Amino acid sequence: MGPQHAWPAPADPDYAAAVRASYDSQGLMRTLGARLVEVAAGRTVIELDFSPGVAQQHGLFHGGVIGAIADNAGGYAAMSLMPAGSEVVTVEYKLNFLRPARGAMLRAIGEVVRSGKSLSVVRCEVSCLDPEAQLVTGACCAIMQATMMRQSG
Amino acid sequence: MGPQHAWPAPADPDYAAAVRASYDSQGLMRTLGARLVEVAAGRTVIELDFSPGVAQQHGLFHGGVIGAIADNAGGYAAMSLMPAGSEVVTVEYKLNFLRPARGAMLRAIGEVVRSGKSLSVVRCEVSCLDPEAQLVTGACCAIMQATMMRQSG
Amino acid sequence: MGPQHAWPAPADPDYAAAVRASYDSQGLMRTLGARLVEVAAGRTVIELDFSPGVAQQHGLFHGGVIGAIADNAGGYAAMSLMPAGSEVVTVEYKLNFLRPARGAMLRAIGEVVRSGKSLSVVRCEVSCLDPEAQLVTGACCAIMQATMMRQSG
Amino acid sequence: MGPQHAWPAPADPDYAAAVRASYDSQGLMRTLGARLVEVAAGRTVIELDFSPGVAQQHGLFHGGVIGAIADNAGGYAAMSLMPAGSEVVTVEYKLNFLRPARGAMLRAIGEVVRSGKSLSVVRCEVSCLDPEAQLVTGACCAIMQATMMRQSG
Repeated sequence: MGPQHAWPAPADPDYAAAVRASYDSQGLMRTLGARLVEVAAGRTVIELDFSPGVAQQHGLFHGGVIGAIADNAGGYAAMSLMPAGSEVVTVEYKLNFLRPARGAMLRAIGEVVRSGKSLSVVRCEVSCLDPEAQLVTGACCAIMQATMMRQSG
Repeated sequence: MGPQHAWPAPADPDYAAAVRASYDSQGLMRTLGARLVEVAAGRTVIELDFSPGVAQQHGLFHGGVIGAIADNAGGYAAMSLMPAGSEVVTVEYKLNFLRPARGAMLRAIGEVVRSGKSLSVVRCEVSCLDPEAQLVTGACCAIMQATMMRQSG
Repeated sequence: MGPQHAWPAPADPDYAAAVRASYDSQGLMRTLGARLVEVAAGRTVIELDFSPGVAQQHGLFHGGVIGAIADNAGGYAAMSLMPAGSEVVTVEYKLNFLRPARGAMLRAIGEVVRSGKSLSVVRCEVSCLDPEAQLVTGACCAIMQATMMRQSG
Repeated sequence: MGPQHAWPAPADPDYAAAVRASYDSQGLMRTLGARLVEVAAGRTVIELDFSPGVAQQHGLFHGGVIGAIADNAGGYAAMSLMPAGSEVVTVEYKLNFLRPARGAMLRAIGEVVRSGKSLSVVRCEVSCLDPEAQLVTGACCAIMQATMMRQSG
């Protein structure tokens, strides 16, 4: 779109370990079977396989699951740019659903748009993949725009 | 606040059974242990007990769980006013978190603000309860504003 | 809906004068002809008469005008509870349009849901009034949910 | 970010004229001095010069003005892909403010993410420009995510 969203170098050289440690302590991600598959500065990726336990009434991925991994992908993207010892809290998120979420796997890519001292703005795109982990046609099933807040740990 | 949000009488006299049947076919609600405890015309209530499996990294309710039951409470409130045979789909939802979600139980109350032929606008408030199912001080932990769409079944 | 949203007593006894002074320095409100008609602790009301200069392509109130006065009504509701010398900044707002905004006047009622040290969550309802300043049938044309931030002046 | 958001060829070969005619009939855009400077299939650009009449209390662009042109840039991007004779209505929009909106000019770029038969999802980025119409450092001051609905004219 318009101007690039550049963000500063990570303030914590060990940001990836900090993000992974926080992620691993979330019971919900284990319950859902979600995996944090990539942690970069300003960007994280979470994947989740389909199972009946994450479905809505028509056997597709439930919107609440899409929201949960989008929230996390965005939150940890924000945390990756915060000083060592920071915690991240979601202030608000907003999710638009684009298509029925039919697929073998979901992939949520969270990216920072603006990293501030206290507040960060992030976006996330959630897509559906087939059993070979390829994007299905019209893959993007939801987009999120959210605000995250830093807390000193 | 301002004017009352009145909504029409339910178009389907068996709306409660239709809502319950749809809810019961959602695998995610079983996975999370969420219960649909009230279905009225234009309003539904969902409750969920705390367990480590629905927690975030600090041992509180995960925002994704709050979003999942808020989305459902709002969606089924909208569905309760739709003609027989309708399905409900979430167009978008937006959630503001007010406080850390600490408690023994969550309660999500979804209400219709505007019930249209195709689109409905709903709100939801999510609160924390103590082990005696009483609202804790500063109980409301999140509010949602969302758009739901009717689909003919 | 669920629990009441109680908020603390105003921290600044002269909050109404501070809110009015800030409002009066907004060029846009003069351009649009919007009036701040009520300032209470945690609640403000803004009104605006219809004119072709605030219309969209079908001769109704433009959504951008509805957003502008909703944003302000919510922001000043938040500011009314802040310490003396505070400024208020909008972090984000989300607006759902319920009906075509047809009427002689708009009234936006902004209320605080949660007043925090740094961030506040507010809601606003915007309604249409007839030439006698009575609510028209199905008066509420838009609802807003937003986050405001305090800045020390 | 993730998958590309491709959209179909425009259904109305005269979409640009239809968009411009609708835009030109909006009184508010004249009041604010906003200009529709680009209309492409799935994308429109609106610009607006700074003046005290579009300012907030600190002499920067008012958030309501940012919302008004973002709403329009997104809405007309959606309309550009609709069949001849369509009208576009905003269902909801959500705006995150990234930085104080200081500059000589605002530019809002609206793009379609998903163009459906009835509903479209759009995004918009609003940036600040200097007097030479160059993007200022940290130019992007707001991002929007919104739902638009088609109405047959």
